[in-house]
Amino acid sequence: MQKIRSGQLAALLLGSILTPALVQAAPASDAAIREAALKDDVAWDITEGLTTEVGPRPAATPQEARGREWAAAKLKALGFANVRVEPYKMPLWERVHDEAAIIAPFPQKLVVAALGNSGSTPAQGIEGEIAYFPTIADLQAAPDSAVKGKIVFVSHDMVAAQDGSGYGYYGAARRQGPSIAARKGAIAILVKSIGTDHHRIAHTGVQMWADGVTPIPAVAVSVPDAEQMARIVSRGQPVRVHLTAVSKTAKDQPSGNVIGEIPGSDPKAGVIVAACHLDSWDQGTGAIDDASGCGIVAAAALQVAKAGTPRRTIRILFAGAEEVGGNGGRAYYAAHGKEPHALVLESDFGADKVWKVDFTLPSGHEGLSARIAQGLAPLGIVPSRDKAHGGSDIEPLVEAGIPVIDLQQDGTRYFDIHHTPDDTLDKIDPAQLRQNVAAWAVTLNIAANAPETLGIN
Amino acid sequence: MQKIRSGQLAALLLGSILTPALVQAAPASDAAIREAALKDDVAWDITEGLTTEVGPRPAATPQEARGREWAAAKLKALGFANVRVEPYKMPLWERVHDEAAIIAPFPQKLVVAALGNSGSTPAQGIEGEIAYFPTIADLQAAPDSAVKGKIVFVSHDMVAAQDGSGYGYYGAARRQGPSIAARKGAIAILVKSIGTDHHRIAHTGVQMWADGVTPIPAVAVSVPDAEQMARIVSRGQPVRVHLTAVSKTAKDQPSGNVIGEIPGSDPKAGVIVAACHLDSWDQGTGAIDDASGCGIVAAAALQVAKAGTPRRTIRILFAGAEEVGGNGGRAYYAAHGKEPHALVLESDFGADKVWKVDFTLPSGHEGLSARIAQGLAPLGIVPSRDKAHGGSDIEPLVEAGIPVIDLQQDGTRYFDIHHTPDDTLDKIDPAQLRQNVAAWAVTLNIAANAPETLGIN
Repeated sequence: MQKIRSGQLAALLLGSILTPALVQAAPASDAAIREAALKDDVAWDITEGLTTEVGPRPAATPQEARGREWAAAKLKALGFANVRVEPYKMPLWERVHDEAAIIAPFPQKLVVAALGNSGSTPAQGIEGEIAYFPTIADLQAAPDSAVKGKIVFVSHDMVAAQDGSGYGYYGAARRQGPSIAARKGAIAILVKSIGTDHHRIAHTGVQMWADGVTPIPAVAVSVPDAEQMARIVSRGQPVRVHLTAVSKTAKDQPSGNVIGEIPGSDPKAGVIVAACHLDSWDQGTGAIDDASGCGIVAAAALQVAKAGTPRRTIRILFAGAEEVGGNGGRAYYAAHGKEPHALVLESDFGADKVWKVDFTLPSGHEGLSARIAQGLAPLGIVPSRDKAHGGSDIEPLVEAGIPVIDLQQDGTRYFDIHHTPDDTLDKIDPAQLRQNVAAWAVTLNIAANAPETLGIN
Repeated sequence: MQKIRSGQLAALLLGSILTPALVQAAPASDAAIREAALKDDVAWDITEGLTTEVGPRPAATPQEARGREWAAAKLKALGFANVRVEPYKMPLWERVHDEAAIIAPFPQKLVVAALGNSGSTPAQGIEGEIAYFPTIADLQAAPDSAVKGKIVFVSHDMVAAQDGSGYGYYGAARRQGPSIAARKGAIAILVKSIGTDHHRIAHTGVQMWADGVTPIPAVAVSVPDAEQMARIVSRGQPVRVHLTAVSKTAKDQPSGNVIGEIPGSDPKAGVIVAACHLDSWDQGTGAIDDASGCGIVAAAALQVAKAGTPRRTIRILFAGAEEVGGNGGRAYYAAHGKEPHALVLESDFGADKVWKVDFTLPSGHEGLSARIAQGLAPLGIVPSRDKAHGGSDIEPLVEAGIPVIDLQQDGTRYFDIHHTPDDTLDKIDPAQLRQNVAAWAVTLNIAANAPETLGIN
């Protein structure tokens, strides 16, 4: 109870944005749900089970299909209603073999991982001289003659941030670098991993070729290897690299979403979608990205159900193929976009604790956001002045104007792990995972039972 | 000066072991050497240069030979006298290709690295059912029937310790596990990495086959993969693994030691050997193991030389082939064991700060150890009651009774990195590296100028 009093005090101190909530007592069930969720085992069970019994789940592969089977069986066993797999087809890009080495002036191996949609080298690899650019701006500014026929190496100085904001900025080296290098005539590109760790693990991730660009091999280099490359380049001698990055592609491969529901009592009140993604990159077992997100949303929905039938249906969306472009989110929208949606939320930023909450609600709903903020305060979560934006799995719904709430997780160590072989179960802190479940359970419970009208803004 | 006063106070508080030192003022040069060493760049230059311009340096390979060339040129350039390479021949074991995957019940790849002297699989690998043993004692106690025809998997629960003492105890799984498994009829052995990290990097390391044992493939599994294996085994279904660990061997390959000297004024006073090793494992660039050790001993010797010609010759030994069995240390002893040696020291435990000092000196030399302890105290280093034992590179000298001092480094994070791909330059903290140089410079200066007689205990 001390915690709740502290939370109310915090809400008081936050001033006008929260004032409407204070005229109304926090629902008694908030505290009960929060306390029950802090003892939750379901989120761990899902995260542990999916990463152990399925392992890596790259989009449009048989492993992702095993993930769907596993998840559908699990959601049924947990008591979700209307559990189903909704299939769709999509193109497949698949890693076959990556290998790289500096061959001159100081021969040594490099740890690399092809980026999604990388062009393939021949099996025997390719060889070329390095053209080094400390930043993507340097690459962009370079004349074609400095790049043509060479292997571009782009570095950057990404630093960790609690809100993960470095990813958008520094990620340009991965997202745009390959197309820029290909247009200037490079034979391949090495990108310093978009990561904040110092381990010999490369961070993969998707990149899309700009229109009219012929794909070239595009690989990430581990952070220590990228630093080593920069040191070697600084010696002033030409640096030659041998690169093998064999991949394959296929059209119209099966992927799909898995859906389960906690049915609500008022079908006209609109559905709340709580999303995560089931696919992962191939290098790790997708524990923080995003098995834990699926564990959190499912566990939280069950906590709400345990407290009684909510007004609104809570629909759990375990989306497919998020990593390679959000195919699952688009497929969901194509199938369900015309149904009444009250609110959407997504958990896809690891399993470290939620530290703030952002809202994008219809105007006049300050009372709802204040009640949610009040329910979250005992968990150490503060409301922000930022708008909520959601993520890939719910992007089409958010773009269509459905209200969205972001329970923002601490991303300080997220980019140490994300898209690397290190994304494994041991990185999940069970206590922080439970705090996520509690934050989600409180939020879903208040929103699902809210008397306000919710829907298109 | 404040620091020196604190040091004297600490020495006073330590009681009787240090009392003799207090009758004699600390040499004025101690403080000057310590302060100069704390600004040293030579240790970093050697560590950075060797890891960047040579990279990995496995024993008896051309890369180790490049390391010798590099080191000899560097020691000459730094002004060492009598710089030479002392060659010897030795057997070579070399990694060719490692790959492993669980194929049932939950197919997924495993990160592995063959241990030194591992038997080789055929190129297409081998397949077998896992026989899991939580500890080496469990393997030892198992009947042959539980092991025969299977792939043994041995786990353990190593935890980090400042003095690195977990390595000796838990390392038995790597050192004895393969021979025990082979004797019981296993077709291969997977050993949980003897490491304290949680990254997808496997810790290699040498193991020697017991007499009469036919080698089997023996590999380390990364810590997260070992935990995953244990979880999968706990599901109760038979676990099948496919393992490829191709290696090759050759007899009579070239290796060698690199030696350089700071000549002393009194040839009869005996030589002080300050050792490190030049070879490294193949997976990383051998930054903490042991380029930094070579940087420390060379930089410290130069600091002593800058202060004036010492009484005793300081001989820097960059030993070859430490990792695979101490061949360089034995070759040194075969060539030089009959020369008069006053004292030996070795730096081979990373580059984190020295925190205590152990002595094994002839009885009656408490004054010398107290003077050294007094010189080290301002660096946060305390004398211990433990005997010094040295390490592989100086083991034959220590066994012959030459006095030894151990400047014990903080090993808390050493086994996160040791023998893995992560042993790279970015793990070195320049400030802690300089503290090592200062500790070594003070120790070498006092010992090299000590009026006491030193030699066989």
